[in-house]
Amino acid sequence: MQNNTKPLSDLEIALQSPMQPITAIAEKAGIPEDALELYGKHKAKIDTTKLAHLQADAKVVLVTAINPTPAGEGKSTVTVGLADAMKQLDQKVMVALREPSLGPVMGIKGGATGGGYAQVLPMDEINLHFTGDLHAITTANNALAAFIDNHIHRGNELNIDPRRILWKRVLDMNDRSLRHVMVGLGGPAQGVPREDGFDITVASEIMAIFCLAKDYADLKQRLSEIVIGYTYDRKPVFVKDLAVQGALTLLLKDAFKPNLVQTIEGTPAIIHGGPFANIAHGCNSIQATNTARKLADLVITESGFGADLGAEKFMNLKSVQGNLKPDAVVIVATARALKMHGGVDKAELKGENVEAIKNGIENLAQHIQTIRKFGVEPVVALNRFITDTTAELEAIQDWCKANNVKIALTNVWEKGGEGGLELAKEVLAVLEQPNNFKPLYNMEDSIESKIETIVKEVYGGAGVKISDQALKQIADIKKHGWDQLGVCMAKTQYSLTDQPKLLGRPTDFTITVREVIPKLGAKFLVCLTGDVMTMPGLPKEPAALRMDIDEDGNPIGLF
Amino acid sequence: MQNNTKPLSDLEIALQSPMQPITAIAEKAGIPEDALELYGKHKAKIDTTKLAHLQADAKVVLVTAINPTPAGEGKSTVTVGLADAMKQLDQKVMVALREPSLGPVMGIKGGATGGGYAQVLPMDEINLHFTGDLHAITTANNALAAFIDNHIHRGNELNIDPRRILWKRVLDMNDRSLRHVMVGLGGPAQGVPREDGFDITVASEIMAIFCLAKDYADLKQRLSEIVIGYTYDRKPVFVKDLAVQGALTLLLKDAFKPNLVQTIEGTPAIIHGGPFANIAHGCNSIQATNTARKLADLVITESGFGADLGAEKFMNLKSVQGNLKPDAVVIVATARALKMHGGVDKAELKGENVEAIKNGIENLAQHIQTIRKFGVEPVVALNRFITDTTAELEAIQDWCKANNVKIALTNVWEKGGEGGLELAKEVLAVLEQPNNFKPLYNMEDSIESKIETIVKEVYGGAGVKISDQALKQIADIKKHGWDQLGVCMAKTQYSLTDQPKLLGRPTDFTITVREVIPKLGAKFLVCLTGDVMTMPGLPKEPAALRMDIDEDGNPIGLF
Repeated sequence: MQNNTKPLSDLEIALQSPMQPITAIAEKAGIPEDALELYGKHKAKIDTTKLAHLQADAKVVLVTAINPTPAGEGKSTVTVGLADAMKQLDQKVMVALREPSLGPVMGIKGGATGGGYAQVLPMDEINLHFTGDLHAITTANNALAAFIDNHIHRGNELNIDPRRILWKRVLDMNDRSLRHVMVGLGGPAQGVPREDGFDITVASEIMAIFCLAKDYADLKQRLSEIVIGYTYDRKPVFVKDLAVQGALTLLLKDAFKPNLVQTIEGTPAIIHGGPFANIAHGCNSIQATNTARKLADLVITESGFGADLGAEKFMNLKSVQGNLKPDAVVIVATARALKMHGGVDKAELKGENVEAIKNGIENLAQHIQTIRKFGVEPVVALNRFITDTTAELEAIQDWCKANNVKIALTNVWEKGGEGGLELAKEVLAVLEQPNNFKPLYNMEDSIESKIETIVKEVYGGAGVKISDQALKQIADIKKHGWDQLGVCMAKTQYSLTDQPKLLGRPTDFTITVREVIPKLGAKFLVCLTGDVMTMPGLPKEPAALRMDIDEDGNPIGLF
Repeated sequence: MQNNTKPLSDLEIALQSPMQPITAIAEKAGIPEDALELYGKHKAKIDTTKLAHLQADAKVVLVTAINPTPAGEGKSTVTVGLADAMKQLDQKVMVALREPSLGPVMGIKGGATGGGYAQVLPMDEINLHFTGDLHAITTANNALAAFIDNHIHRGNELNIDPRRILWKRVLDMNDRSLRHVMVGLGGPAQGVPREDGFDITVASEIMAIFCLAKDYADLKQRLSEIVIGYTYDRKPVFVKDLAVQGALTLLLKDAFKPNLVQTIEGTPAIIHGGPFANIAHGCNSIQATNTARKLADLVITESGFGADLGAEKFMNLKSVQGNLKPDAVVIVATARALKMHGGVDKAELKGENVEAIKNGIENLAQHIQTIRKFGVEPVVALNRFITDTTAELEAIQDWCKANNVKIALTNVWEKGGEGGLELAKEVLAVLEQPNNFKPLYNMEDSIESKIETIVKEVYGGAGVKISDQALKQIADIKKHGWDQLGVCMAKTQYSLTDQPKLLGRPTDFTITVREVIPKLGAKFLVCLTGDVMTMPGLPKEPAALRMDIDEDGNPIGLF
């Protein structure tokens, strides 16, 4: 950071960072020319059918975090910075990230492309439409909705009960007014009136499927298995009953190819897919991770929200379905965020407060325990902020030492890969050792048992309360023979409990499962606990107010 | 067409036609390498800021048609075939087309990329997501909707009346259930309940603006001028009041660059923008046409629907705003379509029926008269169908001869450019002569007078009835000083009247203008006559049912 001047914004740093042609990045990554489809000079799609001969055998480092707070943890930034550090250490490394949703970009949040000198480029394009993947998913999702309503309007041969349609429309926008809508109004020529709602695109089951499918055949198969609702006599209706899985697959055919970009330091990055980490599993696509594993020796990837949601699902869902495993896990924490977990308000973060850190560190302790339960020894990345005091950082380091936890200071926002060298060395040491990775449950366990395992082992809860509605749904799921699927907990990301305001490491709490929704295409059962937001709203002053372009079309004000 | 075998589908012909790398097409078209942004191997965007030094001085041939019928006319096919014929005649030619909307592709219609051996390639990609332009427009449109509802939810400082919001949401999908919806349901945290509706993306004012804007500055200026609704005290509310024109422009920045593709015969084609030809002006973007005019000596372009809608708007709106003029006009007609205008049902089209043609040709006569009124001598392209009889074709040719109308037979579906040589020669002859092109009205004329001019001179109507509501709206428009804009008639495409079932050339009819809606960004006033469909529905058996991909991701069943 420059002295005596306003620090540069992420966008300004990104725009002044020179990029290599994506063809050069691809060549160094070993991607054959005929597998590369350029999208402008600095983005490309990879035709994975041309890489079928390669083994997906690179080691995988998963970057996760404590429960997120408004203070910010910098998980994507550490992911990018760690990859750049590995490159500085001469590792053949690729980074595999989720792609950002436009809705939050227009709203409040920073991008999902890292920050400072640990960013993927071109950050403006990645954060806007990128290569159109999310738009293709939106289109496929809404085409299916239109096919459903059209089927009912045109005679409803399948006997679909319009009151029991599960399939919602989506937009890649923060738009609270679309959460609950009535559609089909205006008379008999305008469709059948019914209650409906819009989710944000990343909450679509198609996004989850897109990220879990191995190849086109698997993609189509999974799409065909989506339950879109029930008939008047309560039989499930599948996409295959509408016979539109081919059209949906066709709409996704180009989007399904992973996207290649680069970090500021020229490390190849694959950015592909980005499902929610609450009602979905929160990881980039299996195709992306496994493509990176074919091309590199080491893949740095991330999962959504904190380790209780994203990492748990990376290990119990993505790893199992994608036939991969984490060889090392990094847990990102900051002094600021730990202070918030220790009870400090965001407005009070500036002052030194070692006591709060000592309380808040219990949140980190729970996530360390979780990762160890999966058979992996985690490394804590203590991501420095300019306001952190030495006493605060030492408190965290001392705690780790006392508890036999590996920890490394990182400073990648300011220094790029160089700021991640200490972390990289710790991670490489972990990678030297084989681990005993194992998912926490077996698919054959009962649904209730799978939920209980997660609540007790991952959240540190005392038990599970399953609502009458959820019990009925579980009975139905068993009746249909869908119970041997993974469990996808839809819980607030802010707390280990289902209460967003309970920070730190609460004990003796019970998690209430209100509903269990089968997502057969994604091959998991979504367990709703508390209110889970699937369509965000905009703040009073949306980020959009600062956005603009100059006369040559260059972006302004994007973060 | 092959004998004794099932004729190939458009998709099969397209997939088996070899393509040149788009870099080769660009080089031959004289596009500098630094102006080219590749989207895969066969699509590219053109950065027009790199062509600022070139003069847009090519001649323009506009292809239009008689009023469309279910028999099909083949306007895009003739446009492509004519360009290929011109290339065969050693003209330095480019074709400039509208880009297809995904909604109709999923529904019923063929693509908008021509047919047979007169197609633009890659037809599957162009008809699906192409380079994402329509998705960017959808996103900008719906971001604006979200900003409006968020503003009201967050305190409504601008005093916007939720009952008087003009701005609708859009999707690029045929989805009748979204025509009339209630949004903002579910309680105080979920926005403000109000009536709303979705149009198809091509009906968005942003699409019209996108196609009429000269450059980024003009684009942003026009976006800022959109009237999104009225306050409780009936004052107009503009996008600039919400201060989001910068964000909307940013969302459109890459989409705004024209797309380069190629025809089956390797003629460079620019495909960019595609507004409705009823509530908008129905032509590809001014940027696309003028970029083609910079690069080629001759540009073949088309307008939407029949000459009463598309060509009228090309001449009175696009030409005026874009500082261009049509140097020649082609009117496409088929024997089959003329039979329908002569009273024959679609089911009865197979048999020879010269009498019906003699009646139906009056529809063509009206459009010929229209083009002549604009000061241009048209050429009729009689587009052959395999079932046409010699007597039918001769009846049309004889009529043209008797009425001093230039006519050429075309057979481009079967023969590509070769099938358009006769037409190309007729057009070249017309281009030899200067024309006296002039719009039919002056912007200074009163709104009523501009409407009456179009109704009498273009539709052949006797007069105009303006509803009380429209009279009130016109008074308001005058009060605001918006009356010196062009008039954009929103009328059924099937008839010269406002009654879709009145084919041929009706006389002594009156057009009723029910509403006049200011579109200040597009710089025209939309005059609604009859019911104008702005969100299509799907048929009972959507085209999607036939669509699929094979295991390598190749498309199946797309037309």
